[in-house]
Amino acid sequence: MTGDTLPDWRDSLPWPAADTHKHARGRLGVVSGKATQTGAARLAARGGLRIGAGLVRILCPPDAAAVVAPTIEAIMLTPFGSDEALAEAAAEMDAVVIGPAAGVNEVTQANIRALAGTGAVLVVDADGLTAFEGWPADLFELLDRDDVLTPHEGEFKRLFPGLLDQGREAAAAEAARRADAVMVLKGPATVIAAPDGRLAINDNGTPWLATAGSGDVLAGMIGGLVAQRMDSFDAARAAVWMHAEAARGFGPGLIAEDLPERLPAVLAALFAQSSH
Amino acid sequence: MTGDTLPDWRDSLPWPAADTHKHARGRLGVVSGKATQTGAARLAARGGLRIGAGLVRILCPPDAAAVVAPTIEAIMLTPFGSDEALAEAAAEMDAVVIGPAAGVNEVTQANIRALAGTGAVLVVDADGLTAFEGWPADLFELLDRDDVLTPHEGEFKRLFPGLLDQGREAAAAEAARRADAVMVLKGPATVIAAPDGRLAINDNGTPWLATAGSGDVLAGMIGGLVAQRMDSFDAARAAVWMHAEAARGFGPGLIAEDLPERLPAVLAALFAQSSH
Amino acid sequence: MTGDTLPDWRDSLPWPAADTHKHARGRLGVVSGKATQTGAARLAARGGLRIGAGLVRILCPPDAAAVVAPTIEAIMLTPFGSDEALAEAAAEMDAVVIGPAAGVNEVTQANIRALAGTGAVLVVDADGLTAFEGWPADLFELLDRDDVLTPHEGEFKRLFPGLLDQGREAAAAEAARRADAVMVLKGPATVIAAPDGRLAINDNGTPWLATAGSGDVLAGMIGGLVAQRMDSFDAARAAVWMHAEAARGFGPGLIAEDLPERLPAVLAALFAQSSH
Amino acid sequence: MTGDTLPDWRDSLPWPAADTHKHARGRLGVVSGKATQTGAARLAARGGLRIGAGLVRILCPPDAAAVVAPTIEAIMLTPFGSDEALAEAAAEMDAVVIGPAAGVNEVTQANIRALAGTGAVLVVDADGLTAFEGWPADLFELLDRDDVLTPHEGEFKRLFPGLLDQGREAAAAEAARRADAVMVLKGPATVIAAPDGRLAINDNGTPWLATAGSGDVLAGMIGGLVAQRMDSFDAARAAVWMHAEAARGFGPGLIAEDLPERLPAVLAALFAQSSH
Repeated sequence: MTGDTLPDWRDSLPWPAADTHKHARGRLGVVSGKATQTGAARLAARGGLRIGAGLVRILCPPDAAAVVAPTIEAIMLTPFGSDEALAEAAAEMDAVVIGPAAGVNEVTQANIRALAGTGAVLVVDADGLTAFEGWPADLFELLDRDDVLTPHEGEFKRLFPGLLDQGREAAAAEAARRADAVMVLKGPATVIAAPDGRLAINDNGTPWLATAGSGDVLAGMIGGLVAQRMDSFDAARAAVWMHAEAARGFGPGLIAEDLPERLPAVLAALFAQSSH
Repeated sequence: MTGDTLPDWRDSLPWPAADTHKHARGRLGVVSGKATQTGAARLAARGGLRIGAGLVRILCPPDAAAVVAPTIEAIMLTPFGSDEALAEAAAEMDAVVIGPAAGVNEVTQANIRALAGTGAVLVVDADGLTAFEGWPADLFELLDRDDVLTPHEGEFKRLFPGLLDQGREAAAAEAARRADAVMVLKGPATVIAAPDGRLAINDNGTPWLATAGSGDVLAGMIGGLVAQRMDSFDAARAAVWMHAEAARGFGPGLIAEDLPERLPAVLAALFAQSSH
Repeated sequence: MTGDTLPDWRDSLPWPAADTHKHARGRLGVVSGKATQTGAARLAARGGLRIGAGLVRILCPPDAAAVVAPTIEAIMLTPFGSDEALAEAAAEMDAVVIGPAAGVNEVTQANIRALAGTGAVLVVDADGLTAFEGWPADLFELLDRDDVLTPHEGEFKRLFPGLLDQGREAAAAEAARRADAVMVLKGPATVIAAPDGRLAINDNGTPWLATAGSGDVLAGMIGGLVAQRMDSFDAARAAVWMHAEAARGFGPGLIAEDLPERLPAVLAALFAQSSH
Repeated sequence: MTGDTLPDWRDSLPWPAADTHKHARGRLGVVSGKATQTGAARLAARGGLRIGAGLVRILCPPDAAAVVAPTIEAIMLTPFGSDEALAEAAAEMDAVVIGPAAGVNEVTQANIRALAGTGAVLVVDADGLTAFEGWPADLFELLDRDDVLTPHEGEFKRLFPGLLDQGREAAAAEAARRADAVMVLKGPATVIAAPDGRLAINDNGTPWLATAGSGDVLAGMIGGLVAQRMDSFDAARAAVWMHAEAARGFGPGLIAEDLPERLPAVLAALFAQSSH
């Protein structure tokens, strides 16, 4: 553990009870990019599964199915051929991550629009954010207060031009208000802001996280916690902290694929200190 | 080890003798679902191989062969294009697992029917059970007394509507009698019941098992033990216990893929205490 | 280490010198079966690479290339469309393993015939032996004195009907004489016999080796040592011993895929005791 | 660490700062060979990612994409159908590795020519060198002073016939001058020479590196460091040293795939001693 005090989201972590069934433990969908770009979704899905979602399903374009299928065992797979088919698949999910390697285009916009019509909590990352550059209001009107956006500064500027001039904290708070969703403004000290005004600054960041795919794993981890019905603001804070803790435990040489595999050690330390 | 006393199935575990050949050690078949759904069979096969079956072969629809082939090394592969071809492949097996991601449809029914005509002990799980919802007697008439059914409560209710009102133990016992097969009613305290009246309640269950694919591994482990000619009731009890022991040894962050890889430690502890 | 004394092949082990180049360290080819049956060759190749062959190349039928290609990194791949093409590829090899999952048919016969015309030392295993059931002399006339055959008892009987009635040691010795090649008669106490009369009985066998693919790894290990120009009789003895030592170090739950990964520990112990 | 003193490139290692973004940390491209020969590029890419490049992208011929796609997660993939397309993809890279399993042909020549027109630092290895046998000046005129060539002695002789007669040190120095690029002449004591006259001899070489793919990993490691804007001469020295240190830490049984996975331990030891 970093610091002297335990994180105050600790008691909200969704440890399974003795009679928890895998469906009740939370169902997470992760939307994959095209056939050559499936790695990001696989990283996110692995992060979501390791953090405790009972079921994780990759939702992919038909041509990507042959790539994804041999790479997964516990993670499940559903190809979808249209935004309607995506929404249908997502109807059985508690949360869906979209954006990692999704493509900056109208298909991604349409997919997010379709997902917004389901009951699943959305975690929108990467291309899912950039696809609305120039039309941020089109994205915001689709969001519910428990949805989560996870921009790094470049992506943040595309949705909120000029807002960072107010400083990262004020910018994240205002952005959460405008989007009416939880904002995770990534960086050395990631800021997490809720539309109801709650705001937190993560204090265990580490430069080892500056590696490709790291953000995909984080999006999956947030998705995995909200799928377990953890409050979205708490889930974002917890995932950001655990993500960094996993990286700190690994140190130099870290690549994104290490992060999900370090989660059990991070979770075990938290569990040992919990009031379970 | 959990508790003060060793499990009484311990002395029935099929440790290989100095002159045991891989064929004599037991041959397990695992029926795979379609191309996008092969992970469940691969998890079951891995569980069966790790628990000691000498040969494990995935039997898959032709279109799934290209997915499964690059994922296996010691596990073998036979595509089958019809239920007759499946039965032919199964004729060289001591046990066959069917159900994980098999599909809830008539093909699965026909495949189980074909397998029942071979000498292989059947372990029927998941979709293999649900495929007979509404027609449970059609399944039961196919079963032999050493076959094993592994429903969770949802699947149990589909085959035995209302029976759970008697409580889990009585329900499992009655179900074993009706099906004339070993019943493994999964849950926090898994109940194992044999058609001859033997009944056991597993006492080392853990909530970490509430993760996708966990049941597939268990089905494979039971199959791996009965392929080694362990009594089906003892095999089910042993597999349920070892499955939970593997999960307890891993703790928070467990995913199904970890279970087969934890089996060597569980087996080593049992072997050290055995009268081999 | 098992026993009080070090194995007398120890000083023949081909440790690389400071200026050894990967080509000089030995080039091993492994012939793969068809697309659904490539696992055996991949296990053998991994065993050969881990035991020190500088270059290992899987030689596969064209339709198997798409299966093998994504599963290898350091191991290389050459598809071949005819026995002539196989011989051409093998001309750049110091040793070739053929037999694991090769198929019991005339193609395998033709492939062995083609390989015999190259300068590569042959290790013939599994289907490569059974393909000559009924015509053992056709196989023997292709062999050189440094080639190695690795039958288990079932395969041995197909090539030498009745010979096992003389006992395993006498049978292996006579078989080596008839085949004019090194014979590895596998079993609880594997017998290694050379055509010049040398004979050894392995003393560290373990029942954990009774698992699918175990023999494929052994064939690859023998191939990896002879590719490094170790004497074939010594190579067979060394590989059999190290193979068992790797299995003993793992214990219950062993599967064939574990064996190559345990070789570094076995090699390190031998290296520490060597006069390098 | 080997020896009493720390390597003097230590203080030039590009440790990420607290606010380093993955793009700023360095972007590495690795050019893959054809569909059956992608392993070399995957090894190089893994080495480059582990050593700290923030983004690593495999650039492959279109037919190789289906092979590479399922094998990567954090590493990204762009197929290219022409040398123009390759140059376009490389325009977003800080460094590009070309040569491992690239093929000794005019396509490789054209690809290197196209890459030379981008701003990316080039690391030219293996087939990328041999493709210019007979026309070394055609290669040299494409190179900048921060580009790196990584020949073993065989490849060196093809570009500089007779030059090794002067001894390895003088030959490497003269070769660096002629090519006007950093020369890494591999061998038991690898010589690193810069066109400005700097020269270093690596002192922690180990015979365990004589294994297929070892050189591919080294090329990727050099590429990963220069992508992070480390001076090319220092990067080459550092990578050669760390590559050997990783191998020494593993010992007997090493295969190339182990090298990237040992880098975190090597990096951690260096980081602990750095003035970060």
